[in-house]
Amino acid sequence: MKREYTGTVKVIPLGGLEQIGMNITAIEYNDSIIVVDCGLAFPEEEMLGIDLVIPDVTYLKENLDKVKGFVITHGHEDHIGAIPYVLKEVNAPIYATRLTMGLIESKLKEHNMMRSVKRKVVKYGQSINLGEFRVEFIRTNHSIADAAALAIFSPAGVIVHTGDFKVDYTPVFGEPIDLQRLGELGKKGVLALMCDSTNALRPGFTMSEKTVGGTFDKIFNDNKMSRLIIATFASNVDRVQQIINSAVKYGRKVCVEGRSMVNIIDVAESMDYLQIPDGVLIDTEAMKNYAPEQIVLITTGSQGESMAALSRMAASLHRRVSIQPGDCVVFSSTPIPGNEKSVAKVINELGMKGAKVIFQDTHVSGHACQEEIKLIYSLVKPKYSIPVHGEYRHLIAQKEVVKSLGYDNEHIFIAKSGDIIELGEEKAGITGRKVPTGAILVDGLGVGDVGNIVLRDRQNLAENGIIIVVLTLEKYSGQLVAGPDIVTRGFVYVREAEELLEEARMIVSDSVQTCMDKNISDWSKIKNIIKDDLSEYLWKKMKRNPVILPIIMEAQL
Amino acid sequence: MKREYTGTVKVIPLGGLEQIGMNITAIEYNDSIIVVDCGLAFPEEEMLGIDLVIPDVTYLKENLDKVKGFVITHGHEDHIGAIPYVLKEVNAPIYATRLTMGLIESKLKEHNMMRSVKRKVVKYGQSINLGEFRVEFIRTNHSIADAAALAIFSPAGVIVHTGDFKVDYTPVFGEPIDLQRLGELGKKGVLALMCDSTNALRPGFTMSEKTVGGTFDKIFNDNKMSRLIIATFASNVDRVQQIINSAVKYGRKVCVEGRSMVNIIDVAESMDYLQIPDGVLIDTEAMKNYAPEQIVLITTGSQGESMAALSRMAASLHRRVSIQPGDCVVFSSTPIPGNEKSVAKVINELGMKGAKVIFQDTHVSGHACQEEIKLIYSLVKPKYSIPVHGEYRHLIAQKEVVKSLGYDNEHIFIAKSGDIIELGEEKAGITGRKVPTGAILVDGLGVGDVGNIVLRDRQNLAENGIIIVVLTLEKYSGQLVAGPDIVTRGFVYVREAEELLEEARMIVSDSVQTCMDKNISDWSKIKNIIKDDLSEYLWKKMKRNPVILPIIMEAQL
Repeated sequence: MKREYTGTVKVIPLGGLEQIGMNITAIEYNDSIIVVDCGLAFPEEEMLGIDLVIPDVTYLKENLDKVKGFVITHGHEDHIGAIPYVLKEVNAPIYATRLTMGLIESKLKEHNMMRSVKRKVVKYGQSINLGEFRVEFIRTNHSIADAAALAIFSPAGVIVHTGDFKVDYTPVFGEPIDLQRLGELGKKGVLALMCDSTNALRPGFTMSEKTVGGTFDKIFNDNKMSRLIIATFASNVDRVQQIINSAVKYGRKVCVEGRSMVNIIDVAESMDYLQIPDGVLIDTEAMKNYAPEQIVLITTGSQGESMAALSRMAASLHRRVSIQPGDCVVFSSTPIPGNEKSVAKVINELGMKGAKVIFQDTHVSGHACQEEIKLIYSLVKPKYSIPVHGEYRHLIAQKEVVKSLGYDNEHIFIAKSGDIIELGEEKAGITGRKVPTGAILVDGLGVGDVGNIVLRDRQNLAENGIIIVVLTLEKYSGQLVAGPDIVTRGFVYVREAEELLEEARMIVSDSVQTCMDKNISDWSKIKNIIKDDLSEYLWKKMKRNPVILPIIMEAQL
Repeated sequence: MKREYTGTVKVIPLGGLEQIGMNITAIEYNDSIIVVDCGLAFPEEEMLGIDLVIPDVTYLKENLDKVKGFVITHGHEDHIGAIPYVLKEVNAPIYATRLTMGLIESKLKEHNMMRSVKRKVVKYGQSINLGEFRVEFIRTNHSIADAAALAIFSPAGVIVHTGDFKVDYTPVFGEPIDLQRLGELGKKGVLALMCDSTNALRPGFTMSEKTVGGTFDKIFNDNKMSRLIIATFASNVDRVQQIINSAVKYGRKVCVEGRSMVNIIDVAESMDYLQIPDGVLIDTEAMKNYAPEQIVLITTGSQGESMAALSRMAASLHRRVSIQPGDCVVFSSTPIPGNEKSVAKVINELGMKGAKVIFQDTHVSGHACQEEIKLIYSLVKPKYSIPVHGEYRHLIAQKEVVKSLGYDNEHIFIAKSGDIIELGEEKAGITGRKVPTGAILVDGLGVGDVGNIVLRDRQNLAENGIIIVVLTLEKYSGQLVAGPDIVTRGFVYVREAEELLEEARMIVSDSVQTCMDKNISDWSKIKNIIKDDLSEYLWKKMKRNPVILPIIMEAQL
């Protein structure tokens, strides 16, 4: 018996940037909106001094009454990181699985928001009603425990959202992805599938997390005389579990370094996602009581992040751990695009200190490759495909995979941020209208007070430094009473350039004198003349283009 | 009959940085020094605003009389780029093969140095006498034509330096590497081998450049209805030749975009390193007279460099070429570590414009993999191994390869910049003494006038922006006659923060008033009080740390 579907459901991605992944999607039917995930992004290289990037949720603010809740697929930063910022403006209940909620709560505590935000832990298989929607959480596998796919039931039809996932038949923790339920949903009819594209460029299947355990055992066995230092992602609790398993098997004590690693291990152990036998974990301070070969140190820094523990060890900047000749350092990770050079730098530094470095076969991805994507499509058999999660090139790659299954261009929608995808039984498409979206930059406590002008200034300052020209004019006569003086920062090493700076001061003096002689009293004109004359001189003399900032003061005598 | 060897020869790497490759090595015997290569490096990410990095050649300047000449292995920037800078301080003749010299000369012309620098083109197999040394140039293969290995004959023994090389049995231009001569030298006895380490982490053999030609043919055949745009390294003339060959075969016209690509094609064609049939090359302006499928455009930008032609096309910033749906863009390159993210950005932008992007199987490396390294060692059979060219992790990797051939640690020397390796028949080793080396930063016309202090200032400015506090004091009374005023750049979007800045001005006013009240007249004390009070306020209020620059002026009334 086929159900009666009615109306259209809208899918609206709100993650403001094309290049970097803030995952947040509004799903709307009549007067109901649910929001899937609420992630942040880390700043691009050109976003100088920025700490975080969060999505512009103007659309949600304008439709505050409609927003029924946030449903969160898993606990990675690009899916939960913006919650404290967004919930301050759009307060609605949060629904997530147990570990995911644990990680969200540690964020809410930091922002003093535990009282103001409603939360509900959802179990796999459980459904919640949110306005016109019903949302069911379905077990998946990923590089963090408790990841969920969502079946979103609406009057217009069912949307399945995979979240970030892989198919792991032999997971380290918990059960394999619930393929049966996905098949059952597909059998009953699914309107659209929103599927993870991260690895859509990669053929084949992602290996099981468990395979890394075998590699660890081999490394422990091959390096019995060395201290082992293993760097991995703090949030990959299963990876940490496997390191601990090998440590127990080979009789080593385990130390932990890196703030986020210590935190996550605390949370995961207290929630029973991590099993550590008594006496295995020791303080780094106690390391001195053991021989190097009795120790394995688990640490952050697998991406070469300059402030992370491993990078500080490699650069001899870590307070408690110094790299010794004979140490064996394992990178249980692959560099995220953009981090290759930082990782190479750390490997070089470790090599120079006499450490052996292993960085192969000790990592598997948490995302589905092409054959897994095909498997999910073959189970869910959606009418429409909406590739999600990844850069544009990854979305395109999923589109090619989906086309190889017989779908045509008209049934695959690649949306940009702010696009509205309307889906119904009769017809579907990207409407052409846009909702407002964007990236909001967070710098310290300032949210959104640093924009393009400020970033462009920072870029100019960074490239060329600044020359400040100050002078004081008498209020009534307009006569020069102090200066012009020149001060520079980041321009040139002053002691080497005294002559040049004195010449620059003469140029500016002449410019000011000319203004006086011509009775120019308009400050902005004077400033422009100073700027033009000085920048011409510096370009001719040095082929450089510093920021020139004239400041005129008014003296009242 | 064994020769009589006497004394020791010193090998001294002078390329000042560990992480980035400026190739320049002094080789010294008694009163003779020859210099192998003279390269520059491109700035690291943290070297804000720097254009180039060149080596500190203090050691050569201190031994000016000894320096007999520069012998150059090939024409890449990291081997020839510092010549105009270094030769201004250490003028000695340059020896290189024909194309290499052509590229050096175009640099010397730019710097008006053609008259002041002696040059001699050397043929493969030819030897030159330089003081106590004789240097023979030996044919090799690389990603640029006319690459040479060097056999350096000294009274203490023979050193073979491979330069950058691969073993290509079927090169596109010229002949394969002269394996026979390397074998002959080895048979007679070689003291040390300095061998390229770039690909020492990679097992197997690097494929022949010619294999890329087959891939191009397939791409031309598979994309008969599309305009083809192919990005590659400008200096890889053989790659360009193969694109032109395919273009001729498939009846397409060839356009060239990107300044360095246009330059190199001019030089290479005029010197007969590139064969272009008449009528094949057309101006980009003439492209409009042809259908898209009759065109192949060869361009720079294969590394995603933001100012290169392809990147500008992808961002709709190129004046003459705009990407059209249906265009097929080929990246004939692999990203150099550090460029992955820029390349991905360009691929995403091309995808959004509807172009198809191909970036697999269209590139082979110019450097030897592990099996080729083993081959060269087996021919040359040196007594000592000195891995060169590559990051520290690559040198270590070559060491492992060499050890697999039966060498022990005592016969392999991994030197850091400034180390002195002494080599003789009886004994050899790194002496422990150091010669001065370093990296000199070039910013515009300034060579070495930007150092660590300036870079640290630029970094601070980039991260946080600057707040300038100006005030004017009367000369004799010390009374405040103007200000304090506050001006910021790169700190905060001023219109959003008027209140904050006004509050900051009040804080500073209070600080100044306190100084006046306490009769503090020492300017540096006043400045420190302003800095401390303001930075405390800003940190409390915003958790930000801008550069605070108080400027005090003196008014004479």
